[in-house]
Amino acid sequence: MFGRFRYQTTDFEGEVFDGTVYPAPAYQELDDEYSLSAVTVLPPVLPSKIICVGLNYADHAKELNMPLPKNPILFLKPPTALLPDGGQIVCPKESRQVEYEAELAVIIGKAGKNIPIEKAFTHVAGYSCFNDVTARDLQKEDGQWTRAKSFDTFAPLGPFIVTPEELEQKNLDPNNLSIQTRIWEVGNEKSKRTGQNSNTSEFIFKIPDLIAFISNIMTLQKGDVIATGTPPGVGRLIPGECVEVEIKGVGCLKNTVI
Amino acid sequence: MFGRFRYQTTDFEGEVFDGTVYPAPAYQELDDEYSLSAVTVLPPVLPSKIICVGLNYADHAKELNMPLPKNPILFLKPPTALLPDGGQIVCPKESRQVEYEAELAVIIGKAGKNIPIEKAFTHVAGYSCFNDVTARDLQKEDGQWTRAKSFDTFAPLGPFIVTPEELEQKNLDPNNLSIQTRIWEVGNEKSKRTGQNSNTSEFIFKIPDLIAFISNIMTLQKGDVIATGTPPGVGRLIPGECVEVEIKGVGCLKNTVI
Repeated sequence: MFGRFRYQTTDFEGEVFDGTVYPAPAYQELDDEYSLSAVTVLPPVLPSKIICVGLNYADHAKELNMPLPKNPILFLKPPTALLPDGGQIVCPKESRQVEYEAELAVIIGKAGKNIPIEKAFTHVAGYSCFNDVTARDLQKEDGQWTRAKSFDTFAPLGPFIVTPEELEQKNLDPNNLSIQTRIWEVGNEKSKRTGQNSNTSEFIFKIPDLIAFISNIMTLQKGDVIATGTPPGVGRLIPGECVEVEIKGVGCLKNTVI
Repeated sequence: MFGRFRYQTTDFEGEVFDGTVYPAPAYQELDDEYSLSAVTVLPPVLPSKIICVGLNYADHAKELNMPLPKNPILFLKPPTALLPDGGQIVCPKESRQVEYEAELAVIIGKAGKNIPIEKAFTHVAGYSCFNDVTARDLQKEDGQWTRAKSFDTFAPLGPFIVTPEELEQKNLDPNNLSIQTRIWEVGNEKSKRTGQNSNTSEFIFKIPDLIAFISNIMTLQKGDVIATGTPPGVGRLIPGECVEVEIKGVGCLKNTVI
């Protein structure tokens, strides 16, 4: 696993292993290792773009009684919306309906254009958890989804990036991972409820198809994030709540709502 | 006027005056000046995001017989779509209807969040010409506009950035500039026709309103681009054509289509 961190005033990339962070060799002014509790966790990459996919779970299409889409429907979230694990999702005053959307994020490791399906996985640096936070009322009002999904803090990503090798070692396939959302009131664990509960095996467009489709349109850069769509069961977030997106083998991304 | 340029293998920022480029002082390895013809013109900024506004010309709303929108409709184009003045717009094989959309681009000079209308102009570095190239058929097919507007080369910007002071010296107001598109076959000047012909005085949402509205959603970063919407008269581009977006006092952005 790797990610980005802050120690005092220095932002750095590093590997994470068993609660210890090992800064990349380039950061010579830093110690060789830090306890995870001694550093601030930042979003694990600085993407030049965050490309999101609309309806991409067969069970979600069924829930919505919609036909399966012919092509992935794309939209972009701005990098300024990124929020690290542990950060606070800020509900904007314009919206009365802020909702969570759990997603598997694919992190691009090697730039490419017109990437063929069979080479797609060679462009993947790893996977992370993503929450495509959405002001549902503004999404309906605008028709275009950009405003509703672009508020600062509306793109929680993390906590870290799990490499394809690490998934493989656990005998896990990114196109077959359980994905869940849980919500509860801060300080009241008994209120915990499950929001979404699905599996990436329900993908309509699998990861290599998405990489090929998107890179046929726009050049993918190292660090770019592809959010692969959300399963059924999206629902509301209320200030004072905690939300976590857990994906088997990838991690658990936890944020509070204010 | 300022912009970005390449001399041999060095990309640099510089001022432009009367056909001569003066590299910024930071580029000590470069000469003090170059003829514009001796350097390659690059897109004049490297934005972290390109925020575009849908319907924003009253005459365009009238043409479409649509009511004036209550709020600006926003969408994003990826930075990988940028194309400099003189660059080639590549028509993708998926589309049979690639169209031009002339727009005034506002370049952010100072980062900000929740910028009040009355302070908006203090965040502007300058203005440039923008062509919001769009695969109209894919736009209609998807509903969401992202795919249709995100192909590499679909965001021509330039040639340079004109500062607010330079506009003022010419007694020009960015909310009152003539804006035109002209199209012709390469090598056949006689085929030149006018596509769009309007004025930014037709803006439904003026520049300070847009900056306030957008920065209320997402933090604006230095170098970010706001494309302010397109006037009536959009139309088709065919490989082998040239298209130019000319905005009074701001410049003329010329690209060929392949």
